[in-house]
Amino acid sequence: MRASFGVYIMRTIYWDDSTQQVKMIDQRRLPTRLEWISCTTAKDVSEAIRTMAIRGAPAIGAAGAYGVALTASLSTAKSIKDLEDEINLSVKILRNSRPTAINLNWALDRMLKVSHQKSLSIQEIINSLVQEAKCIADEDIQTNKRIAEFGSGLIQDGDVIIHHCNTGSLATVEGGTALGVIQEAWTQGKKISILVDETRPRLQGARLTSWELQLTGIPYEIITDNAAGYFLQKHIATKVMFGADRVSLNGDVTNKVGTYMLSLAARANGIPVLTVFPSSSFDPTSKDGNSIVIEMRDESEVLELMVDGEKTVPQGAHALNPAFDITPHHLITAWITDRGILYPPFNPQSIGLMGINRGDKQ
Amino acid sequence: MRASFGVYIMRTIYWDDSTQQVKMIDQRRLPTRLEWISCTTAKDVSEAIRTMAIRGAPAIGAAGAYGVALTASLSTAKSIKDLEDEINLSVKILRNSRPTAINLNWALDRMLKVSHQKSLSIQEIINSLVQEAKCIADEDIQTNKRIAEFGSGLIQDGDVIIHHCNTGSLATVEGGTALGVIQEAWTQGKKISILVDETRPRLQGARLTSWELQLTGIPYEIITDNAAGYFLQKHIATKVMFGADRVSLNGDVTNKVGTYMLSLAARANGIPVLTVFPSSSFDPTSKDGNSIVIEMRDESEVLELMVDGEKTVPQGAHALNPAFDITPHHLITAWITDRGILYPPFNPQSIGLMGINRGDKQ
Repeated sequence: MRASFGVYIMRTIYWDDSTQQVKMIDQRRLPTRLEWISCTTAKDVSEAIRTMAIRGAPAIGAAGAYGVALTASLSTAKSIKDLEDEINLSVKILRNSRPTAINLNWALDRMLKVSHQKSLSIQEIINSLVQEAKCIADEDIQTNKRIAEFGSGLIQDGDVIIHHCNTGSLATVEGGTALGVIQEAWTQGKKISILVDETRPRLQGARLTSWELQLTGIPYEIITDNAAGYFLQKHIATKVMFGADRVSLNGDVTNKVGTYMLSLAARANGIPVLTVFPSSSFDPTSKDGNSIVIEMRDESEVLELMVDGEKTVPQGAHALNPAFDITPHHLITAWITDRGILYPPFNPQSIGLMGINRGDKQ
Repeated sequence: MRASFGVYIMRTIYWDDSTQQVKMIDQRRLPTRLEWISCTTAKDVSEAIRTMAIRGAPAIGAAGAYGVALTASLSTAKSIKDLEDEINLSVKILRNSRPTAINLNWALDRMLKVSHQKSLSIQEIINSLVQEAKCIADEDIQTNKRIAEFGSGLIQDGDVIIHHCNTGSLATVEGGTALGVIQEAWTQGKKISILVDETRPRLQGARLTSWELQLTGIPYEIITDNAAGYFLQKHIATKVMFGADRVSLNGDVTNKVGTYMLSLAARANGIPVLTVFPSSSFDPTSKDGNSIVIEMRDESEVLELMVDGEKTVPQGAHALNPAFDITPHHLITAWITDRGILYPPFNPQSIGLMGINRGDKQ
């Protein structure tokens, strides 16, 4: 781990060579405690993704790759066929941990490709798999640097930015997407401030984005998600920014629940809506957002709040808890990626996506 | 108090003749505990309004009137001038307890009018003031019955209604506005269900609307405010309903924060938006919503959440907490009132508002 809070470089997930384990920040404990967990198997990683110990589309992509690498490094397979079976099983388990973010599929497909190099020996395949996982994770850091360079040009001195969910280092391997752009603009000396959507139900804004902004010194204030409309209609906010869990070829963005209502309110008031993501968030098989599977999570996430030591819902109450929604392309002003600021329709070929298999076709 | 949970008639606030006190449900303790508080002075009532022990525009209107009645019934004034001074002071204190809901001003102005009947004796004025407060409160019950009759015709069998904040008996003296319409439609045998916006930051939906719906047996599920967009874009929700804290003559509705974003999302998907309120919520001096003062409440309401015994924001975090927003008239489908289903522009004369003084002109 490289952690220097002075300049704020924080790596969220890494491969520990000495123990052959994957270490990650347990994001469920923040902002109260900064704790790390160790995963020794693909199943551990899958569980960490499912329970949101790690979350954020790019971060769970890297986690998935590391999960496959764990299976490889633990393998005692005597034949390539046996190793392949082990890898395929791990990929299946990991793929099912969360359904909506495409980066997980993208990373697992890269790992599958490596495992299918039939000219190599078992040990060579194992080594290649560990290497590929490290590569996927390290690439993310470079990707985020490019995103920050492209995106920071769109941020102006004096901007008051409503930011949804968490898109910081915690959502990636290191550096962040939308929050990386914000940090880069701040580093360039632009005087900006952030209105942090608390982002119910898991409160990633209140818990994680606030915590990361506090480390950087960028001024921020927390707002409830439903207060964003007030700050947009009064033109106190000047920009809206968020990440993406999956981007369709027509530009529709699947992202954390609430992104859609936020974008509607920004657009209704003529305020720019910027989505920021690595090109691994493109789904080359998705024409538009209509067919994307939206994960429904457990009702306990909505019902578990306490205030003054008391529950805030009646005994026996139930909840519905969609984790994502679809923001149609016409509400979005710019798609900020590591390949530049792009505009739909996106051509799968020109953004270099052809030839990558989608998991759900296998 | 009349409380019969079988048929669900619950009066939220009343004048207790035996003690000459005002009794009200302490809404801060629900849904965990149903507790009553007693107010003996106008200051007690003002504090109850400020701290939201009582809330909901019609309920705080009645509370304000009762507060003035308390001052009158405690008065030992020896001259009409002294009594008038006492009443004027109480009205001032009560008027300042919360700035946005107009019903409080409306009720206080009715009380002032009674106190200015110079042909009466001191004791007659005192008696008239207590009588007028009781009358304002009792009228609210009849008003809500008429609202429910008019509004229930717009509810269809099979409707799935997203409801924002609390508009039930708890938000009024008895019967409710939007929730009164819903209860009437349910009583008529229409099979409906409710998606309850939790309504951050005070969670009046999760705490109060859920609790009231549970008493009636109407099926409901809680959703986070920012999930409403998902249910609207998937056309799972078929209607959106909420109350009003103040209605401008052009139809703009000032209501609990989040109403604006909810209405935008409904309108974007062609789903009807129904606002429900007594005609005392009209502000005859407000041309449109632009000039309405939006109350900013304490940041602690946003920051005080706990999950698993831990705070959900970093140490030192700050928040901005607007309590209301403005929903422009073009997003609203129907204005359901005790005088029928009305459409703007509203004529102050035809809705019987002329001659009522606005508090802030005094």
